[in-house]
Formats: sequence, structure tokens, C-alpha cells
Amino acid sequence: MTALLEQLIEALRVLPGVGRKSAQRMAYHVLERGRDGGRQLAAVLAEAVERIGHCSQCRDFSETPVCATCASASRDRQQLCVVESPADRLAIETATGYRGLYYVLQGRLSPLDGIGPRELGLDALATRLAGGEVAELIVATSATVEGEATAHYLAQLARQHGVRPSRLAQGLPLGGELEYVDRGTLSHAFGSRGEMRE
Amino acid sequence: MTALLEQLIEALRVLPGVGRKSAQRMAYHVLERGRDGGRQLAAVLAEAVERIGHCSQCRDFSETPVCATCASASRDRQQLCVVESPADRLAIETATGYRGLYYVLQGRLSPLDGIGPRELGLDALATRLAGGEVAELIVATSATVEGEATAHYLAQLARQHGVRPSRLAQGLPLGGELEYVDRGTLSHAFGSRGEMRE
Repeated sequence: MTALLEQLIEALRVLPGVGRKSAQRMAYHVLERGRDGGRQLAAVLAEAVERIGHCSQCRDFSETPVCATCASASRDRQQLCVVESPADRLAIETATGYRGLYYVLQGRLSPLDGIGPRELGLDALATRLAGGEVAELIVATSATVEGEATAHYLAQLARQHGVRPSRLAQGLPLGGELEYVDRGTLSHAFGSRGEMRE
Repeated sequence: MTALLEQLIEALRVLPGVGRKSAQRMAYHVLERGRDGGRQLAAVLAEAVERIGHCSQCRDFSETPVCATCASASRDRQQLCVVESPADRLAIETATGYRGLYYVLQGRLSPLDGIGPRELGLDALATRLAGGEVAELIVATSATVEGEATAHYLAQLARQHGVRPSRLAQGLPLGGELEYVDRGTLSHAFGSRGEMRE
């Protein structure tokens, strides 16, 4: 194997979920059948790594100082939805009809890993909540232990500034068979059952 | 989502087994935690796509006109092992103690796909067999229908030039791709290869 090919296989392992064997298969595939695509990938990747930064308003990825959503005049500025990652934000944007703004933490509170309020930009969020424009803070962090702790912290922060915090509903997933839902979810869904209306 | 990020996600799909969702995860991962690795990958990929060509002797990938193995004085030039792909060659090289040379077809006979002897460089192989240096042609194509057809063709070609053809021992799982066979099985099959009869 050539030195350059070996380097390529090693370099591909920066991608998540790509081990030695996958990297090898990818390298061979690109060299055998996808040279144009490989050239294109190299160029776009180099440009993206240099040019994509973060929006100064919502902390999501952006090529411009303020992203298109934050700069848009047609979004409802009274609603602010807090998510953990850009992927979560994208999921909400594509699945729901939400027309408010977002705030991307790029992580969640995890004191043991040294991730506190400062690392998540919560000081900037506090300043924004104090500004008075936001009426509702929609807390869309994960339903994990750390996500819940982060949600609790965010709700307190919102109340301190007179902003109403809300949390995504928890319960059975749509189309989920009761038999296969995990105990915790089932117990929670049962406990917080709501009255059926006509 | 920014236009550049969208381009990056599309470009990543040139990699085998990477769909829209994986590409998105890869792009976010590189931007969040692997910018240096991403920069490195872009540079190596661009260089590899331009500089890695094929060895004029064995048709494997090579940065130089003749690859290191073909140029080596310590390999046994009487043995020539024919494989379908660079990955197969690498698998044999790492799993067995083989010290002869290789010939990489970069495919297998498949008339329906327009892949005939010419596409696999079999004219050059015939010239080489006629040269008289090769005593044994080890046919290490896959144990698939097309691999077997290719093996049969190669065996005939060898006999025409007075070269003894041999085939990896039965023991390879039926229909199995050589690249994914475990080391032990591959090594055993390689070691107990048998002479091909008409």
C-alpha cells in the first residue's frame, strides 16, 4: 500500500463511526469509482472547515455573522426554542411548523466534563431574556438525565427574567406499540395521562 | 442550514454506505469537534485523488509508475497471484506469508456489464505469462459465479503459455467476498491451494 493511500485511510477516520475497515473501503471506492466526487469533497470540506462559523445570535453554524433565520423578518421573535445541537434544531425545523427563533447550546450541562453555563453561552442567553423581547422559552433539550438538568436550569433562568418556560411533551412515541415502549416512558405516560375530549 | 453546509453534506455522499442522515452527522461532527482532522482529510484526499495512479506492472494503486512490491528484489517472480481488487490483494498480503507478485484485475469478467478480458488487462497478463518468468499463476478471484468464470478463463490463459494455474482451496464460504473473509480462513485457503484441472 502506498504511503499516500495509508494517509488517506487514516485521515478518513476523523469521520464519526468510521473505523479502519470502513475507511479502507471508502478510500478504495473513491479511487476506483469516485475521483470527481472525491475532488469535490476535498474542495467543499476545506472551504467549509474554514468558512463556517457560528451565528452570533443563536450559536448555530453559519457562514455569515448572523444566520438567515435570526436575520429573517418573518419569524416570531417572542418565541425562543433552546436545543442542544444543530441537528436537533434541524429536526424541529423540518418536523414542526414552528416559526419562532432558536438558541443552540452546542452541548448540555455536564459539570463532570467541565461543561457549565459559560460553555453553553447561557450568559448571552440571560442577557437576551433580560431584553424583554422573548415571551416564551421553549426548552427542547433531550429527555436524558443531563438534558433534564439543563432544562431545569434554563427554566429557572427564564423565570428570573419574567419569561414563561415550556417543555416538549413526554409520552408514548407516535405509532409506538405499548408492549415495546420502555418502562420509564410507559410509567411517565401513564402517570401524566390527560382527559380525552370529544 | 447554510448553503456551504448543504454542499458538504451532499459531497460526503460520494463515500460508500453514506446516506443523507450519516452525511449530516459527519458534517456536524467535523465542524463541532474535528476541524483539524477535516482540514487534514481535505488536503490528503485532494492529493490522493490527483497523485495515486496504477502500477504499470500489477495495476494496483501506486504513487509511482511501478509499485514498491513489483520493484522489490526480494519477491519471488515465479509466482503471480491474480486478485480482483486492491482490497483483496491487501487482505492476502496481511493474512498470509506469500512472497510472490500480484496482478490486480480491478474487476472480474462480466459480459453483461461490458467487462471483458480487455477491461481487466488480460492482454498485458498474457504477454507477461508468455515472457516465461512466471511458473505458477495463483488465481485468487472470489468464490462467486463471476469470480469462478474469471478463474476458469485465467486457468486456460495460463495453460496456453505453459504456466501452472492454481486456485485457493475450497473452504471459502460460498458466495463470500474475499475482502471480508477472516484471516484464519483466508490463510488456510491460501496455503492449501490446489492445481487447476481441465
